[in-house]
Amino acid sequence: MFEHLLATVDFSIGPDVLESADTLLLLLVEIAVILAAAKSAGHVALKLGQPAILGELVAGVALGALSQFLLPGQLHDLYVLSTGSDSHLAVLGELGILLLLFHVGLESTPRDLLGVGTTALGVAVGGVVLPLSMGFVVSSLFVSASSGATGGWEMHLFVGAAMAATSVGVTASVLSEMKRLRSRESRIILGAAIIDDVLGLLLLAIITGVIVSANGESERSLVAIIVSVALSATIFIVVGTIVGTWFARRYLLFLAKMKGTGTQAAGLLVFCLLFSAAAELAGLAPIVGAFLAGLVIDEKPDSSNGDSDNVADAGLSEYDLASVTSVLAPVFFVLMGMQVRLDAIFSMDMAFYTAAITAVAFVGKFVVGFAVPGSFASKAFVGAGMVPRGEVGLIFAAVGRTVGAIDEQTFSALVFMVIITTLVAPPLLKRFERGLPN
Amino acid sequence: MFEHLLATVDFSIGPDVLESADTLLLLLVEIAVILAAAKSAGHVALKLGQPAILGELVAGVALGALSQFLLPGQLHDLYVLSTGSDSHLAVLGELGILLLLFHVGLESTPRDLLGVGTTALGVAVGGVVLPLSMGFVVSSLFVSASSGATGGWEMHLFVGAAMAATSVGVTASVLSEMKRLRSRESRIILGAAIIDDVLGLLLLAIITGVIVSANGESERSLVAIIVSVALSATIFIVVGTIVGTWFARRYLLFLAKMKGTGTQAAGLLVFCLLFSAAAELAGLAPIVGAFLAGLVIDEKPDSSNGDSDNVADAGLSEYDLASVTSVLAPVFFVLMGMQVRLDAIFSMDMAFYTAAITAVAFVGKFVVGFAVPGSFASKAFVGAGMVPRGEVGLIFAAVGRTVGAIDEQTFSALVFMVIITTLVAPPLLKRFERGLPN
Repeated sequence: MFEHLLATVDFSIGPDVLESADTLLLLLVEIAVILAAAKSAGHVALKLGQPAILGELVAGVALGALSQFLLPGQLHDLYVLSTGSDSHLAVLGELGILLLLFHVGLESTPRDLLGVGTTALGVAVGGVVLPLSMGFVVSSLFVSASSGATGGWEMHLFVGAAMAATSVGVTASVLSEMKRLRSRESRIILGAAIIDDVLGLLLLAIITGVIVSANGESERSLVAIIVSVALSATIFIVVGTIVGTWFARRYLLFLAKMKGTGTQAAGLLVFCLLFSAAAELAGLAPIVGAFLAGLVIDEKPDSSNGDSDNVADAGLSEYDLASVTSVLAPVFFVLMGMQVRLDAIFSMDMAFYTAAITAVAFVGKFVVGFAVPGSFASKAFVGAGMVPRGEVGLIFAAVGRTVGAIDEQTFSALVFMVIITTLVAPPLLKRFERGLPN
Repeated sequence: MFEHLLATVDFSIGPDVLESADTLLLLLVEIAVILAAAKSAGHVALKLGQPAILGELVAGVALGALSQFLLPGQLHDLYVLSTGSDSHLAVLGELGILLLLFHVGLESTPRDLLGVGTTALGVAVGGVVLPLSMGFVVSSLFVSASSGATGGWEMHLFVGAAMAATSVGVTASVLSEMKRLRSRESRIILGAAIIDDVLGLLLLAIITGVIVSANGESERSLVAIIVSVALSATIFIVVGTIVGTWFARRYLLFLAKMKGTGTQAAGLLVFCLLFSAAAELAGLAPIVGAFLAGLVIDEKPDSSNGDSDNVADAGLSEYDLASVTSVLAPVFFVLMGMQVRLDAIFSMDMAFYTAAITAVAFVGKFVVGFAVPGSFASKAFVGAGMVPRGEVGLIFAAVGRTVGAIDEQTFSALVFMVIITTLVAPPLLKRFERGLPN
């Protein structure tokens, strides 16, 4: 701290200071700026009748643009480093989104989801097949395949795959804000999102396998890879649900007897984190694990059979963790917004292609909502809920770029698609909510 | 995630997997283990009539020892890396301790501290002068000065300085647990701790300046350094208190009008983080800034004059942030416990020296409590509250090692001293609390 002070007193902020820049100091200021921007923009969004998360995403886009255009070179490098995917900030955001999905899970039970299982399966499968095939076609029509680094249909496949992956975080946040998590439409969306994650995993396994095979680097057959991926994901979900439900009852009773401030909140957090870690080990997204952790905890007081093994009766409250979530989750959404590179979007080389990709990505997910029985509002609400691609689409695009299947421009087009689908979902959900039964 | 999955399915966890080890996965498991250990040990401590923080510290020592002796080489390297001072875990702990001090500050007002100002000043000055001089003498008596890398009295000076720095985190946690933050004894301890931080800062400036001068590397006079350090710290505290109090009233009223879940909690957090960052810029410890941020927020409903500008009346509750604190602060204390190297302690080369240093460190702080007017329990309570050295002592020891003033063995002795003074304080505070007026 002493060296830092001297630097401050001397008013010398040169390259040396930046290199030895105090990580904690930088982080404190960044968290403060991000939270202030997120909550201010959230306030404005709510005033305009929009979900707060829309404000948080837009705040992220604005902060990203400001730092890109206004910060001098060195400070900008520091900004990029300190907001990157392995930064302290990103980790705080990751914890926030895990907690958010945990809370979303707490609002449902496995039975709730099984009740809408067939519908959710249809929505999920349709929402993968449609955008995948439509994306493949659009990519084939617009771009000469030779512009992809591997030059060929692999690129179209990656474009389609990036369009197939639903990101449940944004929708879950909106549903939670609306206090609609227990509605039938929400359960369909959440169920479909879980299935979607398994399908997306399979898709990634298949595509990567195909590319690796094409390059002659494969040591295992594609079928073996697909089977092991599908098995490990399915086993995690089935075993996690059954064993988790059994264990959660006992664990909550145990937790209720523990002394100490915040012990119950910390205990729930431990449960959520271990499920998230297990999901990642099984190859699934950690948020699926966090959601499952919440799902198997029965939070609703069930007075009908005198069953006392649930959160409310055990004297626990998820409220404690809710405040942790409401502070950390905005960090995730602001960072998501920051990933938008406005300069990439404003370059018009690929304008038609980008627009076509985005339109197809939207339509491909939105129309599957109309497979859901019910009113127009119900169908449209589910469709809108499936639209955001969020970070999952970005992961696909990034993997495609890494293996050399897609080039920089296509990558930018996909990023734009992710942003737009993410930004349009909250207002659409808000719009169609009006038609839903209360 | 796909590569990771394949690695899992193949049951191959070799060096490659470790190198590309999933940071998030590791972090999730580590947070889960740390929280589970902290809260379990805290539960046991409470059952034994001890403060929960004692359990958290001991849990850290146990986890550190387990990982040191049981983990195979590669995993141990990973453990060291992922719990180091710039790790994600350390940052979570830092945020926890900042929030803890913020809460401690919320319980007091600047007026409360000014009321015990003279006593606190006496306790702080005595608690710096006594251990510093006693440490210098003990170091001179026991160790041949030539074993210090710079070989001389600089080493004794660093030993003394490391013994002079009070760490307020541990004591503040105990006081908060006891719900005694508003008592006179607590206010004296907290006031003395702030003054102590300024004194410690000056001490570090002086010693570093002396060493640098002795090495002929100085560009500025020692007096200039001391004056600038003292000025910047004092200006921050005075201006921060006056401007902060003025601003906090308006800010809280503004926050109360903001929409959105968790907006008030996030708003308070922003206030706390900016004060912490400002303190670090002024050369003080960030926790002093966090404490000051809490101090200037008037949380007590003041019905006597119809003043409505405080947290409670503005409809805000620090409760929201309290749960964040109770989840994050244990991470800090467990990590603090993990820094104990049992092998260093069990090597008996320096046993007498280590014991003497530790005894002097304890006595030097404890006796200053007896300068406080009041009952024996009051004096002993304040004395015990000043005893923990915590991370501040470690910082001194580390700086001394970095500039080459102290060697590895002396460093280990100082670390042991820090641990013991930190571990004995909670039970002592608990013991002497019984004699305090309720």
